[in-house]
Amino acid sequence: MNGAEALLKTLCDNGVEACFANPGTSEMQMVAALDREPRMRPVLCLFEGVATGAADGYGRMAGAPACTLLHLGPGLSNGSANLHNARRAGTPIVNLVGDHATYHQANDAPLASDIHSLARPVSLWCKEARTADKLAPLAAEAVAASAGPPGGVATLIVPADAAWAETATNGPILHRRSPPIAADKTIEAIAAKFRAAKKPVVLMGSPALTEAGLSAASRLSAAGARVIMDTFVARLPRGAGRFAPDRMLYFGEMALADLAGVDLMVLAGTTKPVAFFAYPAMPTVLVPEGCAVETLAPAHEDAALALSRLADAIGAPLVGPVQGYHAGAPPKGELNAYAVGDALSRHLPENAVVSDDAVTAGLPIYMQTRGAKPHDWLMLTGGAIGQGIPVAIGAAVAAPDRKVVSLNGDGAGAYTAQGLWTIAREDLDVTVVVFANHAYRILNLEFARTGAGRPGAQSRKLLELADPRIDWVSLAKGFGLPAVRCTDGQSLDKALARSLGQSGPQLIEVALSA
Amino acid sequence: MNGAEALLKTLCDNGVEACFANPGTSEMQMVAALDREPRMRPVLCLFEGVATGAADGYGRMAGAPACTLLHLGPGLSNGSANLHNARRAGTPIVNLVGDHATYHQANDAPLASDIHSLARPVSLWCKEARTADKLAPLAAEAVAASAGPPGGVATLIVPADAAWAETATNGPILHRRSPPIAADKTIEAIAAKFRAAKKPVVLMGSPALTEAGLSAASRLSAAGARVIMDTFVARLPRGAGRFAPDRMLYFGEMALADLAGVDLMVLAGTTKPVAFFAYPAMPTVLVPEGCAVETLAPAHEDAALALSRLADAIGAPLVGPVQGYHAGAPPKGELNAYAVGDALSRHLPENAVVSDDAVTAGLPIYMQTRGAKPHDWLMLTGGAIGQGIPVAIGAAVAAPDRKVVSLNGDGAGAYTAQGLWTIAREDLDVTVVVFANHAYRILNLEFARTGAGRPGAQSRKLLELADPRIDWVSLAKGFGLPAVRCTDGQSLDKALARSLGQSGPQLIEVALSA
Repeated sequence: MNGAEALLKTLCDNGVEACFANPGTSEMQMVAALDREPRMRPVLCLFEGVATGAADGYGRMAGAPACTLLHLGPGLSNGSANLHNARRAGTPIVNLVGDHATYHQANDAPLASDIHSLARPVSLWCKEARTADKLAPLAAEAVAASAGPPGGVATLIVPADAAWAETATNGPILHRRSPPIAADKTIEAIAAKFRAAKKPVVLMGSPALTEAGLSAASRLSAAGARVIMDTFVARLPRGAGRFAPDRMLYFGEMALADLAGVDLMVLAGTTKPVAFFAYPAMPTVLVPEGCAVETLAPAHEDAALALSRLADAIGAPLVGPVQGYHAGAPPKGELNAYAVGDALSRHLPENAVVSDDAVTAGLPIYMQTRGAKPHDWLMLTGGAIGQGIPVAIGAAVAAPDRKVVSLNGDGAGAYTAQGLWTIAREDLDVTVVVFANHAYRILNLEFARTGAGRPGAQSRKLLELADPRIDWVSLAKGFGLPAVRCTDGQSLDKALARSLGQSGPQLIEVALSA
Repeated sequence: MNGAEALLKTLCDNGVEACFANPGTSEMQMVAALDREPRMRPVLCLFEGVATGAADGYGRMAGAPACTLLHLGPGLSNGSANLHNARRAGTPIVNLVGDHATYHQANDAPLASDIHSLARPVSLWCKEARTADKLAPLAAEAVAASAGPPGGVATLIVPADAAWAETATNGPILHRRSPPIAADKTIEAIAAKFRAAKKPVVLMGSPALTEAGLSAASRLSAAGARVIMDTFVARLPRGAGRFAPDRMLYFGEMALADLAGVDLMVLAGTTKPVAFFAYPAMPTVLVPEGCAVETLAPAHEDAALALSRLADAIGAPLVGPVQGYHAGAPPKGELNAYAVGDALSRHLPENAVVSDDAVTAGLPIYMQTRGAKPHDWLMLTGGAIGQGIPVAIGAAVAAPDRKVVSLNGDGAGAYTAQGLWTIAREDLDVTVVVFANHAYRILNLEFARTGAGRPGAQSRKLLELADPRIDWVSLAKGFGLPAVRCTDGQSLDKALARSLGQSGPQLIEVALSA
C-alpha cells in the first residue's frame, strides 16, 4: 500500500465518497489509487473553481464532506474563491492539494509556491503530510476538522513522495462530535431579557436554519419575536409548510431602518450583523442604537436546540406559523425576475434544491417562490460570484433523487461556465437557468451609490456585458448540454414546466426584458 | 481629487496605460475615476484569471507594466494562477486589489479575507494604502517595484475609503533603473574557466533572451559553447535570422543524458536547472556530476551585456550562426502536431507573436516553426495552464500592429475560455488555435510514469475529456468569435493562411488525429 492508497481508504472509511478533481502530475499517484478504491466517486471538473464549488454544494446537502483534488498552489488558487464561499457557509470540505516531493520543494521548480500562505485564508485547518505514514492519520484528522462543529474547509497538503512511498499506516475511523449545548443559565438569562424587551428580534445564521431550528423560530415568532435570518445563508429549508424568517436587508441603511425600535437582538448561529460593503457616511454595524445584543448560540453550538429551549423558557406556543402553499400566476409577456419567480414557484418540484447565484435577479425570484412546494435554497455566502453552477453539481451528486435548479446572473455564470460540461458528463439532474441582462446590473446600482453620476464611456466598458452578447445556448451546446432561449413569460413557463417535469440536465437562457 | 483619481493619474504619469479588470463594489470609485483619465484603457475580462494573464502578456510585449483591477481576496485568488505564471516570467504587473474600507475590515464582512496572505506567494512587492494620501505615492512605488530589475508582480491593496477620500497628493514620476552590470573580474574568471572547459554550456533564462543576448550567445556558440535555454521562458525572439538556442529537455533523466560530459555550465539570467517534477528515483537537479556551475549574471543583472562581454573576453568571432528561413511542407492528410507546426511555419507573418499553452502539442509545433519568419514566442513559465488565451489578449493590446497566435491544448483552453469574449469585444488581431485531442494527454504520459500500468475505469475519468467532446466552434460562437473546425492537414493549411493573412479575431479548432 502506498500513501495515496492509505489516504483514499481512510477517507472512504470516514464517509468521504465523492472527489471533485482537476489533478496534475503531482497528484497522479492519487489518481492511480482511485482504481483500487471503488467507494470513491471521481468527478472531473475542467477548472478547480468548479471542483471546490461542487464540494461546497455536496457538503451543504450531504452534511458530510466531499474531497477535492487540486494541483499545487495554482490549482488551489483557482479553487480558492469558492473555498472562500464554503468557509463562509461553514461547509465541511476535505481540500486535498498536491505538492512537489518534500525533497524537491527547496529546488523552487516552476510550479512551486507557498501553498500554506495561499491555503490559510480559506481554511480552518491546514496541515501537510511530510511522510506516507502521516498521510492517512492526517486525512482522518482533516475529515473530523472539516465536520466541526463549526464545519469548514480542512486543507491537507500532499507532497508527491508521501503519496508514492509505501506505508502500513491507515487512519482511524473517527466519530462525529456533537455540537456543545448552551448552559441553562444562558437560556434563562436571555429568556428574561426577551420577556422584558419591547421589540425583540431573533437573528438566525446558517447553523440554526435546520428544520428543527425553523420550528423553534416559528414558536418564538408566535410568542412575539420578529425572526430574521442573515442576508446570505448556506442552506434554507423553505416553501410550503415551513416557517419563513425575514431576510436581513442588503444595504446597511435599509437594514437599520427595518430594525428601527428593536431593543433586543438574540443571535442564533451567527454574529453581530454587519454591512456587506462600507459606503461613505453609511453605517456598517447593523444594530440599532440602544439595542442589546445577546448570543444564544455561537456557530459551533447547537443553535436549533438553543432556540427550542428558549421557546420553552418563555412559554411560547408549541406550534407557530408556517408558510402556506401559494404558486404564482402564469407569467405573460414581459420577462422580468418577478415573472421568473412566478414560473419557478409553479413548477418547482417537491424537495427541489435551488443554487442561487442570480445576483440582482435573485431577490425577486426568492420572494416569489416563498410559497412553492417545500425545497432547499442554497445561497452565495461569501460574495464570490461563480458558485451557482458548481454548487448545483455538488448538490446533484449528493442528492441524486432531487431536482436541482441553478440560478445564475450572466456575469456570475461566465465565471465558471466550464461546469456545464461536468453536468453533461455526469448526466446530473440539473436545470441551469441563466439570466441574460448583458450587464453587471449590481455594479450599475453600486456605481450610482458612489455619487459619480452616470457612467461615462470608459466606466461603462467595465459595467456592461453587451457587445458582444454572450449566446448561452451556443455555450451550453459547446459543453454538451441541451439548451433553449426564452424571450417571454409564456415560453419560460413552458420551458420550466418541461425541464422540471422530467429528469436530466438542461440550460435555459432567460432573455430578461428588465 | 479623490484617492482613486490620484492613483490613476500617477499610474498614467508612469506609463501604465492598460487596465485589465473585473471590478466589484469596492473598486467602484476606481471605475468612476476612469471616466476622468482618458490615458488609461480599460479592458473588461469576464474572469480575473483572464485579466491577470492579459496583464502578463502585455508586460512581456510592452516591457512596461499594465495594471489589473481585482475584487478583494476572491478576485485576487481567481487571478492568482496567472500571476504565478507572471512571477515566474518576471513580468512587470501592477496588481490592484480592492478591499473593504479600513474601518470595515475588522467587521469580517462576507467578502473579507486575508489578502496579504493570498498575495504574498505571487508578489515580489505587496503593500496596502491605508489612506488616500498614501495611494498615489505607493502606486509610483509599485510601478518601480514591478519594473525591477528583476521584474515581477507588485500588488497594491486599495481599501475603498482610500479610494473615495479626498487627497492633494499625487505620486512622483519615477525613472527606470538600469540593471546592474557584472564586475570585470567575474567576466574574466568565467572566461578563464570557459577557455579551460572541454564541454562548456551556456544556459540562458528569460532576462538574457533579448535580441542582443541572442547575438552574444551566437558568438559564444561560434566559439565552441553549446547554448541552451530554460525549458520555459517568458519571451523568445526566434525564427529566420536569429540565433536558436537549444531548449533544456523537460524530463530530468533526458536532460541529464543530453548534458552528459558537460564540465562547465554558465548561467545567464537564470539559476541552476531543476526538474519540473520529481519522480521516484529520478534526478531533480539537472547538473551532471563533476560539472562546475558559474553564474555570469543573475536575473536582476544585465545578462545580455554580460554574455557579450564574455564573448569579447574569450575572443569569440564577432558574428555567429543564425537560423535560416525554412518553411515546412504543406501538410496533407493526418492532422498531428507536426503538421500543425508545418502549416504555421508557412503562414506565420513576420513579427507575429505566439502565445503557447499547447502542452503536449507545443513542442512539435515549436520545433517545426524554428525556421519561420522572425517572431516572438511566449511560453507557459509557471506551469499553471490556462494562460494561452489571456496572454494573447495582453500581447495584442500591447502590440496592436502584430498578429498574435494563441496555441491551446483543449484542457488548457477550457480553463479561461471566457477570454474569447474579450478578444471579440476588443476586436483584437488574435487567431486562437485549440488542439482537440479530448484528453489531458500530458497526464496520460505522467500516469504511465507512476508505474501503475494502464489507467482503469476510475482514473480514466480524470484523464479523458471525451464524453462529451467540447465543441469549440460553438463555444467561440457563444462568446462572439467566428470559428472553424479543421479535420485534415489541407483544411488547416487553408484556414491558417486565411486567418493569418487578414486582420481580426478568429478561432480554429484543430481535430488532432494523433
